[in-house]
Amino acid sequence: MRSILNFVNNKFEEGEGEDRFDVFNPAFGAKIASVREARREEVERAVDLAYDAQLKWQKVPISDRINHLFKLERLIWANIDKIAEVTTNEHGKTFEEAKGDAIRAIQNVQSAAAASYHIMGRNNKQIANGVDEELIRVPIGVFAIISPFNFPVMIPFWFFPYSVTLGNSVIIKPSEKTPMSMETVMNLVKEAGYPEGVVQMINGGKESVDFLLENKKVAGVSFVGSTPVAEYVYRKGTSNRKRVQAGASAKNYILVMPDADLEGGIDNIIGSFYGNAGERCLAGSVLVTLPENHDKVMNAFKKRATGLRLGYGMEPDTDMGPLIRREHKERVETYIQKGEDEGGKILLDGRKATCSKYPNGFFLGPSIIDGVTEGMTVMNDEIFGPVASFYTANSLDDALDVMNRSRFGNASSIYTSSGQNARKFSEGINVGNIGINVGVAAPIAFYPFSGMKESFFGDLHPQGGDDNVLFFTERKVIISRW
Amino acid sequence: MRSILNFVNNKFEEGEGEDRFDVFNPAFGAKIASVREARREEVERAVDLAYDAQLKWQKVPISDRINHLFKLERLIWANIDKIAEVTTNEHGKTFEEAKGDAIRAIQNVQSAAAASYHIMGRNNKQIANGVDEELIRVPIGVFAIISPFNFPVMIPFWFFPYSVTLGNSVIIKPSEKTPMSMETVMNLVKEAGYPEGVVQMINGGKESVDFLLENKKVAGVSFVGSTPVAEYVYRKGTSNRKRVQAGASAKNYILVMPDADLEGGIDNIIGSFYGNAGERCLAGSVLVTLPENHDKVMNAFKKRATGLRLGYGMEPDTDMGPLIRREHKERVETYIQKGEDEGGKILLDGRKATCSKYPNGFFLGPSIIDGVTEGMTVMNDEIFGPVASFYTANSLDDALDVMNRSRFGNASSIYTSSGQNARKFSEGINVGNIGINVGVAAPIAFYPFSGMKESFFGDLHPQGGDDNVLFFTERKVIISRW
Amino acid sequence: MRSILNFVNNKFEEGEGEDRFDVFNPAFGAKIASVREARREEVERAVDLAYDAQLKWQKVPISDRINHLFKLERLIWANIDKIAEVTTNEHGKTFEEAKGDAIRAIQNVQSAAAASYHIMGRNNKQIANGVDEELIRVPIGVFAIISPFNFPVMIPFWFFPYSVTLGNSVIIKPSEKTPMSMETVMNLVKEAGYPEGVVQMINGGKESVDFLLENKKVAGVSFVGSTPVAEYVYRKGTSNRKRVQAGASAKNYILVMPDADLEGGIDNIIGSFYGNAGERCLAGSVLVTLPENHDKVMNAFKKRATGLRLGYGMEPDTDMGPLIRREHKERVETYIQKGEDEGGKILLDGRKATCSKYPNGFFLGPSIIDGVTEGMTVMNDEIFGPVASFYTANSLDDALDVMNRSRFGNASSIYTSSGQNARKFSEGINVGNIGINVGVAAPIAFYPFSGMKESFFGDLHPQGGDDNVLFFTERKVIISRW
Amino acid sequence: MRSILNFVNNKFEEGEGEDRFDVFNPAFGAKIASVREARREEVERAVDLAYDAQLKWQKVPISDRINHLFKLERLIWANIDKIAEVTTNEHGKTFEEAKGDAIRAIQNVQSAAAASYHIMGRNNKQIANGVDEELIRVPIGVFAIISPFNFPVMIPFWFFPYSVTLGNSVIIKPSEKTPMSMETVMNLVKEAGYPEGVVQMINGGKESVDFLLENKKVAGVSFVGSTPVAEYVYRKGTSNRKRVQAGASAKNYILVMPDADLEGGIDNIIGSFYGNAGERCLAGSVLVTLPENHDKVMNAFKKRATGLRLGYGMEPDTDMGPLIRREHKERVETYIQKGEDEGGKILLDGRKATCSKYPNGFFLGPSIIDGVTEGMTVMNDEIFGPVASFYTANSLDDALDVMNRSRFGNASSIYTSSGQNARKFSEGINVGNIGINVGVAAPIAFYPFSGMKESFFGDLHPQGGDDNVLFFTERKVIISRW
Repeated sequence: MRSILNFVNNKFEEGEGEDRFDVFNPAFGAKIASVREARREEVERAVDLAYDAQLKWQKVPISDRINHLFKLERLIWANIDKIAEVTTNEHGKTFEEAKGDAIRAIQNVQSAAAASYHIMGRNNKQIANGVDEELIRVPIGVFAIISPFNFPVMIPFWFFPYSVTLGNSVIIKPSEKTPMSMETVMNLVKEAGYPEGVVQMINGGKESVDFLLENKKVAGVSFVGSTPVAEYVYRKGTSNRKRVQAGASAKNYILVMPDADLEGGIDNIIGSFYGNAGERCLAGSVLVTLPENHDKVMNAFKKRATGLRLGYGMEPDTDMGPLIRREHKERVETYIQKGEDEGGKILLDGRKATCSKYPNGFFLGPSIIDGVTEGMTVMNDEIFGPVASFYTANSLDDALDVMNRSRFGNASSIYTSSGQNARKFSEGINVGNIGINVGVAAPIAFYPFSGMKESFFGDLHPQGGDDNVLFFTERKVIISRW
Repeated sequence: MRSILNFVNNKFEEGEGEDRFDVFNPAFGAKIASVREARREEVERAVDLAYDAQLKWQKVPISDRINHLFKLERLIWANIDKIAEVTTNEHGKTFEEAKGDAIRAIQNVQSAAAASYHIMGRNNKQIANGVDEELIRVPIGVFAIISPFNFPVMIPFWFFPYSVTLGNSVIIKPSEKTPMSMETVMNLVKEAGYPEGVVQMINGGKESVDFLLENKKVAGVSFVGSTPVAEYVYRKGTSNRKRVQAGASAKNYILVMPDADLEGGIDNIIGSFYGNAGERCLAGSVLVTLPENHDKVMNAFKKRATGLRLGYGMEPDTDMGPLIRREHKERVETYIQKGEDEGGKILLDGRKATCSKYPNGFFLGPSIIDGVTEGMTVMNDEIFGPVASFYTANSLDDALDVMNRSRFGNASSIYTSSGQNARKFSEGINVGNIGINVGVAAPIAFYPFSGMKESFFGDLHPQGGDDNVLFFTERKVIISRW
Repeated sequence: MRSILNFVNNKFEEGEGEDRFDVFNPAFGAKIASVREARREEVERAVDLAYDAQLKWQKVPISDRINHLFKLERLIWANIDKIAEVTTNEHGKTFEEAKGDAIRAIQNVQSAAAASYHIMGRNNKQIANGVDEELIRVPIGVFAIISPFNFPVMIPFWFFPYSVTLGNSVIIKPSEKTPMSMETVMNLVKEAGYPEGVVQMINGGKESVDFLLENKKVAGVSFVGSTPVAEYVYRKGTSNRKRVQAGASAKNYILVMPDADLEGGIDNIIGSFYGNAGERCLAGSVLVTLPENHDKVMNAFKKRATGLRLGYGMEPDTDMGPLIRREHKERVETYIQKGEDEGGKILLDGRKATCSKYPNGFFLGPSIIDGVTEGMTVMNDEIFGPVASFYTANSLDDALDVMNRSRFGNASSIYTSSGQNARKFSEGINVGNIGINVGVAAPIAFYPFSGMKESFFGDLHPQGGDDNVLFFTERKVIISRW
Repeated sequence: MRSILNFVNNKFEEGEGEDRFDVFNPAFGAKIASVREARREEVERAVDLAYDAQLKWQKVPISDRINHLFKLERLIWANIDKIAEVTTNEHGKTFEEAKGDAIRAIQNVQSAAAASYHIMGRNNKQIANGVDEELIRVPIGVFAIISPFNFPVMIPFWFFPYSVTLGNSVIIKPSEKTPMSMETVMNLVKEAGYPEGVVQMINGGKESVDFLLENKKVAGVSFVGSTPVAEYVYRKGTSNRKRVQAGASAKNYILVMPDADLEGGIDNIIGSFYGNAGERCLAGSVLVTLPENHDKVMNAFKKRATGLRLGYGMEPDTDMGPLIRREHKERVETYIQKGEDEGGKILLDGRKATCSKYPNGFFLGPSIIDGVTEGMTVMNDEIFGPVASFYTANSLDDALDVMNRSRFGNASSIYTSSGQNARKFSEGINVGNIGINVGVAAPIAFYPFSGMKESFFGDLHPQGGDDNVLFFTERKVIISRW
C-alpha cells in the first residue's frame, strides 16, 4: 500500500517518519494508503527551504505572482473530475459534493487573483510642509496551513492562494485522514510554475503540527479543526509569537418560522443537515420551530430524510456517503443514544440503516431526535454527523435567546417570508455566518468565513479580501521629508 | 495628598484598594498625589456596568455616536493648556511636548470621526439566482485600554475614540505613574455627553491589569508598554480568549548617510534622541554613520546636545525635562556606565548635568557614547532615556544588516538626499515605522502605528482606520434568498 | 428693503448688478429683501480671488484643512435655531423642517471630515524590478455650486465641505428665491477661519450662472435644479471643458402592497407627499396600490391629509407651509385642474384650502386625485407641490413596468412586509434612491444622492465619500525607478 | 482582398456599407485588406442585440461572468504570437512591441477579474432605529468602445473586460486603420463562451462613430483618439445624455537633471521617444535639460538614436518600424521642416533615412531638433512620430513653468538621483502620468490612465479599478425600515 508523498522544493518525496496513519475508503471500509508522521528534521528542512524561497519570492512583482494563479485556475478546472474522484474515495462524500469542494477552491483562486488590488497601500502627500506619508503592505515569511479532513480541497484554498500571491511561502499540512486530494492538487501547483520552495506540503498528524508551531521560522498559522485543537494551536502559536487564525467547532441552529415557504425551502434544509453526511462546520444540527408549525415542518423533514439513499459516492444514485471512520460513526451513534436517554424521541434512527452493497462501509443513516430541550447533550455538543434534533421555541425572541446561549457562534439560519423577522434574526443572532432562507450559510470566496465565540480563535478570519490580506501581510508606514 | 479618582458610570469615585502608588512631579522630585491599586470587585463592577451600557450603546445610530466625538474635539482644544499643564507636572516633559501629546489625541478624535465610513460593510447582489450576500461590521463589547506613562493623553486616544464610536464600551487603565492627565480628560468626556458606562476609567497597577485580563466580560485589550509586560498581556489575554493588540519596547536606529543634508536635518535628529527626555518608543537610540561622515555628524550632534537646557517643563526656556522616577534615572545611568565599561567612549556624560533650580528633580543630561559595537548592551537594549550611541557601519547594506539583527522592529530612519538610498532603506529595513529625513517616524492619526518583531504582539495595530476597525468590530456575513 | 450680500474674500459686499429679484416671506406674501443679479465683472473678480486662494490652499496639510470643518460643525449646531428661522421666513417650510435642513448640512460637514481618508491615494511597490507606482489624489481648482430654493442650507453642503476640504475653493450661488439662509451660514464659515477666497458666495439668477459656466478658471460645477436647467448647465459646462454633476427633476412613485403594515407606515407616507409642501425632489407624487387595497389605503391617506394644518412655519401648530411663490402655486393648481380634466377624480382639493390668519400667503392645501392613468399629465410631470395622485396597478410586476416607463429616475418606495417583494422591487426599479417602508429615500450624508435618467446628468453623484471625492479631485499616477 | 468582418451575436459577418477604407502593411506600403464603413441599420441592429443581451447578462451571477475572463486570459496567452503578428503586419510596430501591446491587454483581463470586489456595494445598519441603508452598484446597459490605431489590442482592453464583467454589453469599434488585431481577438472572445450579444464588434470610420453617438440605447462611450475628435465625441455624447470618457492627444516633456544617472537611463529615454515609432500618447516629445548637462545628454541621445535600425517588424533586428500611413509620414516631415524653419537645428534628420529592403514602406528615421524654444510649433504640437526636440531650461522650476504652459497634460518624466527633485517635480507638474527615472509613464492595469487638460475629457479615466467601476456602473441607494 503506497505512502502519501510530501511535496518539497517542487518534488514529491517519501516521508521519513516511523509512525503511520491509515487512509481508508470509508464506503468500502478498506485501507487504501498510508501517511507517515513527519519527523522534526523533515519539517525543519521544508521550513528552511520555504524560508529561503520566500526571500526571493517576495521580490517578484505581483503581476508575475498572479500569473501562476491564472494558470492554476485553468488546471483545476481541467482536472476537477480527477480531483473529485480522489476526494470521494478517501473521504466518502458524493462525487457531486466533492466537485463542489473543488469548485470552492477554484473560487478562492479567483478571489486571490485580486491580490494586486488587495496589497495596495495608501498615501497622503503633504501631511506637513514637505512631508509625505505612505503605508505599504509587505509579505511576512512562511505560513503553515493545517486543514481538516472534511473539505480536503477547499479549506487549504481558503489560505494558500492569498498567502502565496501576497508574497509568502506556505507549508500545507493536510489531514492525515484525507491527504490524497491535496497530493493530487500539488501536481497542478507544480504545473502552474511556482518556484521551488514557495508551496510545500508535509504530511503527518499531531507531531507535525507541533513541529510547525515550535519552528521559529514559521511566521503564522492558519488552522481549521475542532475547538480543543484550535484553542491548543491558537495558544501555542501565539505564545511562540506567531499570528494564528483558527477556525473551530460549531453547533448550528436552523429556525423555521410559521410564515416560511416550507415547500420552497425544505430541500435546502435537508441539505443543511445531511449534506456531506453532516460532517461540516456549517451543517444544520438543531431545527427550531414554534409550536404551531412543529408538526408541519417535522412531517416534511422526516419524509425527505427517510428517502435519502446511502451509498458509495461515485455511484450516481447515492445521496449520502459514509462517515469518515468507524470510530467516528460509533461516536455519533453514542450521541443518538444520549438523545434518547436524556429524554428525546428518536423519530428516525440512522443506526438501523445499512448499505447492503457495501457492508463494510462506515455508513450511518439520517437520524431525527424530536423533543430536544436545552440541557440535553444533543442540543449543545457538536455531533458532526447526520443527526437532526428538533427544538420548539415559543417565539422568535425566545429562539434567539436559546441559540445565543450556545458556546459556539459559527452559523445559523432562519426561514421566513417576513423582512422584519429576517432583520430581527440577523441583528440578534450572535454567529458569524447567517442564512436567510439559506440552510448552509457559506460565504462566497470574496467574503471572510466569520465564526464567533468558541467557533473561532483570532481576530482575522479565513478566506477573502479584507481579513486574509491583513493576516498575510504586515504594514510599514513610511514618512518622508524631501 | 489627594487620591486620583476613578470614572465609573459618569461619576468620579474614590477607589477602594489599600495599596497606593505615589504620583510625583519629577521636576521637583515631590509627591503630588497618590493612586490606589484597584480591588477585584471594583474592576468587576466597572466592567459589569460597561457591559450593560454597551448592549444599549451598540444600538445607537452611528450618526449619534459620532456627535459626541465632534463635541469632544472642541472641548479638548478649549482645554488643551490645562491638560498640558497637568501632564507636565505629573510627567516632567515640557509644556510644548505636553501640548503635542494632546494634539495627537485630538487628531485621533478627528480620525475616529470617520467611523461612519469605517464601519461600512459590503454587499454583492445576485451571487446566485435570487441570493444576495452582505458583510456587516458589528461592535463586540467591552474593551480594556491599558496605557503607559510616557504619553498619558495620546496613547489612550489611539484606541478609545475608535472603540467607542464603533459601538463598544471601554475601561481605560492609565499608568499609575501618570494618571492625572486622563483624569482631567474624563471631565471632558463627561461633558461630551456619553451615556453612563460607555467610557470608564479605573486606576491601579499590575493587579488591576490582571483583573481585567481575567474578566470574562472583557472582549479585548489594547495595551502599550514594555516588551515583557506586553508579551505577558498578550499571552494571558489570548489564553483567556480575548483579542489583544500590544505595543512594546523599541530600539531605534538613525542612519545618516554622507549625502544627507546635515544642516537641515540635525535639529530633527537631536529631537529624536532627546525629545521627551528619550522616554518614547520612537526615540532615536543609536546613531549610525559611515566612516567618512562620522566626525562631521558627531560634531554637529554633540554641539547641539551640549546646548540643551534641563528644567521644569512649565518654564519656557526648558529644552528637556527630568526622567519619570529616580529609579528610572539610576537605571539609565547604569546603561551609560555599561556603555563605557563595554568599550564605548563617553563623549557627553549626562550624569554630570544638574538643574540647579530644581536640585531634587530626576534630571539626567543628554549623553553620547561613541564607538559602540554590536555586542554591547547599549547597542541592543531599550534604554528609554537621553542617551545617544554612535555606531559606524561600512555601507548602507552593512547598516541594514546590523539594524535588522535587532530583536525590536519599531522604527528606524535614514537621512539622505538620494532617492535610491531612501528606497533601498525602506525596502530593506524590518521595522514598522520608517523615517526618510524624519527622525521620529510617528504615523499620523489615520495610519496604524506599526511595530514588528518584539515591538508588537498581535496582528492588528493601534491607531487609524484599517487595523483598529477590524480589531474593534466583528464581522457577520448574511446570505439571503428571497 | 435690504439687499442680500455677496461674500467675497471673507467680506460681505453689496452686489453691483442693476436687476433685482425679490425675496418673499411666502407665508405673509410679503417682500422681505432683494437680490441683485450679478455682473460679469463681479463674478470674474470672485473667481479670480478664489483661483489665487486655491493655489495656496491646496498646499495646506489636510489635517489643518479639516480643523475648519470641526469648528464649523459646532458653529452650526450653536446657531441652528437662528438659521432655521431665516429659512422658514424666506422659504415657508416649518421650523422643524428647516432645522432638519440644517441638520442634514451638519451631517455633511461630519461626513466631509473623513477627507483625510478619502483623499488617500494608493500604491504598489516593486511592480517591476526597482519600480514602484502610486496614485495620488489632487485638488483641481475652483468649483461653482449652484443650488435650488427648496433646501437652501442642505444642498450647498452636499458639495462645499467636500470640495473645500479636499483642497479646492468654491463659489456658491444660492437660489435667488432663498438666498438668506446661506448668507447667514457664511458668517459661520468666516468664523470657522477659512482663509480669504476659499469659500465665496455670489448672488444672482440665470446670468450669474452663465458667467460661471463661461469662466475658464472654473474647473467644475455642482448643480441641483429642474431638468431643463440641469441639462442646460450640463451641456454648457461640459462644452466648456468643466466637470459637471447636475441633479434634476423627479417623479416619485410610492407603491403600497396589500401586505404592508399600513397603520405603521401611513404617517411616513403622508410625510413623503406633503412634507416641505411637496417641494422636494424626493417627495412622493403618485401613490400606487393594487385593486384590493386601494380603498383601504385611500381612506387612511385621505383622513390624515385632511387633517394637515396650513400656516406660518414659525408657529408650532403648523403642519404645512405655503408654496414658494404665487406663480408656482398657480402652476400647481393648473396641474390639479389637468388632473380633473384628463379624467381623474379630485378627492381632496387643496385649492379650496385657506389660511385665515395669513390671507396673503401662497398657501395651497393638500390635494388628492384618484383614478389617475398612465397617459395623464399628473402621472408623468413633476408637480413640486402637495398633490397626491392615486394609481392602481394589477400587480407588483405591473407596477414596476409603469414606474420604469417614467422619464425620471430619482426615487421610489415600496411598503410591504414581504422580504421577497422588497427584493423584487429594489432589483427591478430603475431609480437611484429606493425606500423599503421608507417614504423619503434620502441617503444619509455618507452615501451619494443617486438619481438616474432625466433626474441626473453626469456620472458622479452629489454627497458622500466615493463619488464626490472622485469629482472634486484629479488623479496623478507616479511611476518611479530608483 | 478580403473585408474585415464584424462580430455580432457571436458570428462573424461581412459589413454592408458601400464605402471602404484600406488596411495596409505599412512596412511594405501594400494594401492587405479593407474595411467597410458601417451603415446606420447595421449599427442599430448590433446595438439592439447588445441591449437585449444585456438585460439577461446583468442577472448572471458575477462569479459566472468572471469565469469567462479566466478563460480568455489563458486563450490570449496561448495565441499571443499570432495576435502580435497580425498587429505587426497591420500597424508596422515590431513583433516585440506588438507582444507588449497584447500583454497589456492580458493584464487588463487580470485586473478586471477583480470585479467581484469592485462591484461590491456598502452598507450601514441601524442608521436610525430599525432603519438600514445600503448602496449597490448595478450595470447600466450598452457601452460603445471606440479605439485608435496605435495600440489596436491594448486600448479596447482598457474598457471591455471591466464593462462586460460588471454586467454591461459592449460594441467595440476598432480603428479602421488597424482593425485586424481585434478581429483576431474576437475569435478568442467567442471561444471564451460569452453569450450572444454581450461582446460585439462593428467596423467603420467616422459615420459608425456618429451612429453610435446618436443611438439612444447606447448608455456610454469610451474613446481614445486625437483631441479634436475626443472633444467632438465628448460633446456629442454628453449632449445625447451618455456617459463619456475620452482620452486625447499629448505632448510629453522629459526633463533630465544634471544629477541623473544618464548611463542607466539613456536607453529608457530613447525608448520613450522612438518606441512604437513615436506613435503613442505617452511618447517623449521634448527633451528638457539644464544648460550644464545639455551637451552630455545630447551626445548620449544622438549616439543611440543614430544606431536605431528601421525595418519590417517581424524581422528580429528591426528596432523601429514604419509610420502608419504615407500621409502621416509626410505630416511628420512637415513638422521637422517647421522645426528648422522656426529656428531649430536639425541634428539628426529622419527624412534622409531609408529602409532599403522595403523601399515602399512608410519609414521615417529618428530625428533630433536642437535649440527649440517656447513659441515653436514642435514645442507645442503633438507630432506622433519619431521626432525629439531639445529644449534648455534654466532650472527645475523654470522647466516646470514651461511644461505647465502646455495645453496638454498626459505625461511627463524627470530623470534625477535626488529625492527632493523627484518630489518637487511630481508635486509641481500638471500631468496625469508621471515618470521618475521612467520614460514611458504607463500606469499598470490596476491604475487609471490619468490624463489632464486637453489630454482627457470626462471625469472618470480609463483602465483599472476605481474610475472604470464608477463609469461602468450606476449606484442605487436602498433605505429599509423593517
